[in-house]
Amino acid sequence: MTEAKTKKRVLITGAAGRIGSELAARLIDRYDLRLLYHHAVPAQPPVPDYVVADIAREAELAPAMGGIDAVVHLAGEPSTGADWESVHRANIIGTYNVFETARRAGASKIVFASTNHVMGMYDRDHAWPVYADQAVRPDSLYGVSKAFGESLARHYVDRYGMSIICLRIGWFLPRPHDEIGLWMWLSPRDCAQIVWRSIESELPFGIFYAISNNSRRHWDITDAMERLGYRPEDDAERYAAEIEGASE
Amino acid sequence: MTEAKTKKRVLITGAAGRIGSELAARLIDRYDLRLLYHHAVPAQPPVPDYVVADIAREAELAPAMGGIDAVVHLAGEPSTGADWESVHRANIIGTYNVFETARRAGASKIVFASTNHVMGMYDRDHAWPVYADQAVRPDSLYGVSKAFGESLARHYVDRYGMSIICLRIGWFLPRPHDEIGLWMWLSPRDCAQIVWRSIESELPFGIFYAISNNSRRHWDITDAMERLGYRPEDDAERYAAEIEGASE
Repeated sequence: MTEAKTKKRVLITGAAGRIGSELAARLIDRYDLRLLYHHAVPAQPPVPDYVVADIAREAELAPAMGGIDAVVHLAGEPSTGADWESVHRANIIGTYNVFETARRAGASKIVFASTNHVMGMYDRDHAWPVYADQAVRPDSLYGVSKAFGESLARHYVDRYGMSIICLRIGWFLPRPHDEIGLWMWLSPRDCAQIVWRSIESELPFGIFYAISNNSRRHWDITDAMERLGYRPEDDAERYAAEIEGASE
Repeated sequence: MTEAKTKKRVLITGAAGRIGSELAARLIDRYDLRLLYHHAVPAQPPVPDYVVADIAREAELAPAMGGIDAVVHLAGEPSTGADWESVHRANIIGTYNVFETARRAGASKIVFASTNHVMGMYDRDHAWPVYADQAVRPDSLYGVSKAFGESLARHYVDRYGMSIICLRIGWFLPRPHDEIGLWMWLSPRDCAQIVWRSIESELPFGIFYAISNNSRRHWDITDAMERLGYRPEDDAERYAAEIEGASE
């Protein structure tokens, strides 16, 4: 007689967001989910286990971590146009609080939603291809705030023996709609895959671009394929004729 | 008839500190100095132009930037044992305020005092040599906070066309006193040299280890020699026999 294998308990922060709500739907069978909302709780949350907290307030956040195995940290200020006050509060103070409360609660894995904007100046200069291990060149205070999260992640891994995987998430959309989308698209199912592969990975640390297998991509995904086992199923090229036809 | 060449106006933050007070004495002839003190102003400040301000308070700091050509930003929490509250206030909020007020005031150059602790886990692992362009591996929240300053610097350079040189300052001492000092020492005159060479450099951006020409060093200074023209005059080896004799 074997015991039933219990599912990992996974906390998703930013669960009301575009990515968070999609991930909750796609990971609901694989994990025992807890969802963290900031203000707005949906009328029908996808799971009964949810909490409302402001990640910038450590005392609100800490109770959300009880019993959690892994945190998918999506909450934060997502705009490249955001000012210092906003990225500082949500992405610097907030990310520190998430990592620190997770650590104290004994969660050993974090998947951190970083961004291609950590490296955005390479893109503005068309200095391609870009590999995840190049020196950071943030295009915004938002990008700087996510670079902070990556450095903090590296430190928590080295110091506390946690595993933290940083995903530089590209353009998450149901489907691409323009020329830029043709190279930086991340499809919902590829997003879900790279997140669960990160949760399951035994790598202590890594920084990876998270995009689909786009034929026109400028960012490396070879290391994500090799080290995370990521096998993207989508390629934005499928929409190329339609998009290019529309722009003529 | 030629006009007398005017000296650059240089603001030194953290002017009461060990490094700041030494730099003020060594750069006083080369530049027109303004010194920024936090609380404690010396009984006899080395120059008449000084201000008292808390860098974590932008409104106090901004007036110090008027008319300044270059900022040597040393102020901050310097301890690897410091907690989040302290490094966050002094090194994250404070450094953002220094960069932003300098930019708004039209100062086009910043020399940012970073630290070897941005890379300290390589040292703990004896993963030598270390080059400045390797991925960060901070050994402390202090190291994380300085990595933040380096990322912010990169962004300000790319976005605003400023020049910011980040110096990962080793162990600044009048002379080395132990085995570790034999490899990570930065002598006062070498410190002054690498700072003024950074001020005079036309490089938009760079991250360099700032140590003396120590025969036993583990960190690269070749790029500082090549790109900044740094020509260190001291080598801790001179003290080796004495130090090793004392430890037997």
